[in-house]
Amino acid sequence: MAPSAHYQILLAERPEGTPTRDTFHFDRVSTASPSSGEVLLKTLYLSVDPYMRGRMNEGKSYVPPFELHEPISGGGIGEVVESQSSSLKEGDIVIGNLNWEEYPVVSADAVRKIDPSLAPVSTHLGILGMPGLTAYFGINDICRPKEGETVVVSGAAGAVGSAAGQIAKIYGARVVGIAGTDEKVRYLKEELHFDEVIQYNTVEDMGAALQEACPDGVDAYFDNVGGPISEALYPLLNKYARIAQCGAISTYNSTGEDVGPRVQQYLVKASALMQGFIVGDFSSRFQEGSEKLAEWLQQGSITYRENVVEGFQQTPDAFIGLFKGENLGKQIVKI
Amino acid sequence: MAPSAHYQILLAERPEGTPTRDTFHFDRVSTASPSSGEVLLKTLYLSVDPYMRGRMNEGKSYVPPFELHEPISGGGIGEVVESQSSSLKEGDIVIGNLNWEEYPVVSADAVRKIDPSLAPVSTHLGILGMPGLTAYFGINDICRPKEGETVVVSGAAGAVGSAAGQIAKIYGARVVGIAGTDEKVRYLKEELHFDEVIQYNTVEDMGAALQEACPDGVDAYFDNVGGPISEALYPLLNKYARIAQCGAISTYNSTGEDVGPRVQQYLVKASALMQGFIVGDFSSRFQEGSEKLAEWLQQGSITYRENVVEGFQQTPDAFIGLFKGENLGKQIVKI
Repeated sequence: MAPSAHYQILLAERPEGTPTRDTFHFDRVSTASPSSGEVLLKTLYLSVDPYMRGRMNEGKSYVPPFELHEPISGGGIGEVVESQSSSLKEGDIVIGNLNWEEYPVVSADAVRKIDPSLAPVSTHLGILGMPGLTAYFGINDICRPKEGETVVVSGAAGAVGSAAGQIAKIYGARVVGIAGTDEKVRYLKEELHFDEVIQYNTVEDMGAALQEACPDGVDAYFDNVGGPISEALYPLLNKYARIAQCGAISTYNSTGEDVGPRVQQYLVKASALMQGFIVGDFSSRFQEGSEKLAEWLQQGSITYRENVVEGFQQTPDAFIGLFKGENLGKQIVKI
Repeated sequence: MAPSAHYQILLAERPEGTPTRDTFHFDRVSTASPSSGEVLLKTLYLSVDPYMRGRMNEGKSYVPPFELHEPISGGGIGEVVESQSSSLKEGDIVIGNLNWEEYPVVSADAVRKIDPSLAPVSTHLGILGMPGLTAYFGINDICRPKEGETVVVSGAAGAVGSAAGQIAKIYGARVVGIAGTDEKVRYLKEELHFDEVIQYNTVEDMGAALQEACPDGVDAYFDNVGGPISEALYPLLNKYARIAQCGAISTYNSTGEDVGPRVQQYLVKASALMQGFIVGDFSSRFQEGSEKLAEWLQQGSITYRENVVEGFQQTPDAFIGLFKGENLGKQIVKI
């Protein structure tokens, strides 16, 4: 049974720079009953992801902005507690785009049932979900590493980066990760067997560190970060290098002019490609990606970590933490 | 008969910023006699091109740097005045990479004979040569315009840009050019029938001018220029936009840090592609490109302009002029 009232989290104001607690407002609302075709869910897990920062701004992007004073939404997993749909029954576990809300009512068509016996359900928000698919398509379709090539991954210890690096290794590449804490470096080296890892905030000269880690130059770059880290790498691009521009988290909270050395001439010099993408560009091939990822997971060729914080009220802090370089692996909120 | 002595032009010093006359040194040398397999040429035309600025710097690029105190070289056309090769005879017209020299001796294998009856020989340095091929592959393979799409071309009145815009129009695109003088704007509008032309140095707000010229956004961008002009365009990129990064002439003479707004987030937002390239990347398909260009030229679907200065001694100034936005069409020196 659902309680008669519960909390949801609204966008209180559009943040300038990094979001703070003031960005969010907890609103107590009555629990609704599902109408025909709908289900009432108890939220089990919420995903917090860097791309959501973009939705907090006004103006067009690849997904529409969040509305002010309306619930924030994102990937989530819920259990059906009341169903008015023939396709879902009480106790079913579903995944979809859910409001940040403890007991949301959603259309049964807007969520997808998952089988909790195959893998922990939270993996559908991580390695078997959008982050894993993002890594798969970025490496497989854009970076296209050949045996022995050097692939650099920024944000390497995150959900997407850690999967991307492991997939590049499956394809036979030499993989160099860039991360920001001792713990992340140890994780990438010892658990994920990255060939080299650079702790960007402890090196004096990022360009020199990259040069040392990549004596044969850089053939492909899976970039989550952008900014100065990437700009130190561009001079090392080999002929026909490929950059999968997955994100640019270093710039998402930028308030003023976000400037840096220009990249164009490096692309011309190396005949290099820089391809921006989001996972949705590959939606027609999610089946292919999910099957590959599940296979590699079962074989033990890829592993994953989740960083789980507990409690609905922790959701804003978990999101804010993404921009502090705190999370190792997929950041998830367990409700 | 060749004179017993003639001039060549050496790289006197590596320029800081824009080259000046001090960059060049005229050296009087004895005219050599060809050995077996070689020919002595009388240089007829020399091509000056922006990419040569990169060769004046030290350090690796896609072509090796010019040596200090050695002749500068580039595309040129010559007439055979003495031959020690069975494949070429006196009076033949050849094209190849020639030293900036009035009477060079070259290996017969290093040049290619051209037929002066088909088109003016100088077109082999322009519309039927590297600039035309650069435009063809950049539009055909990277920009890939569909009927009705908006294609923007920067450096639109230059040898490459003017060909690129015309090819995009042959493919049915709406073409917007960016150029820097009244004369260029008139040329692009009236003679080449570009749909819109922006004179970048007379508009107050380049972003607003582009928005007005591209009400449906930008689907493809053939960029010769880079820098602030390009940075005003990036926010207008449509989903899956393609940028053919042919050059970045605005930055070639940069001495200090060359910074600007970062492009990565725009590529991510639009799932846009930015592909650096040089014409040599497509060398296996030059035949295809040349045939297409010759066909369009015969049909009158593309036209071209040459900006010819006369006299070997004008070569340095012709080169320096490339960076002042002086040339309309292909810049050639007639010797």
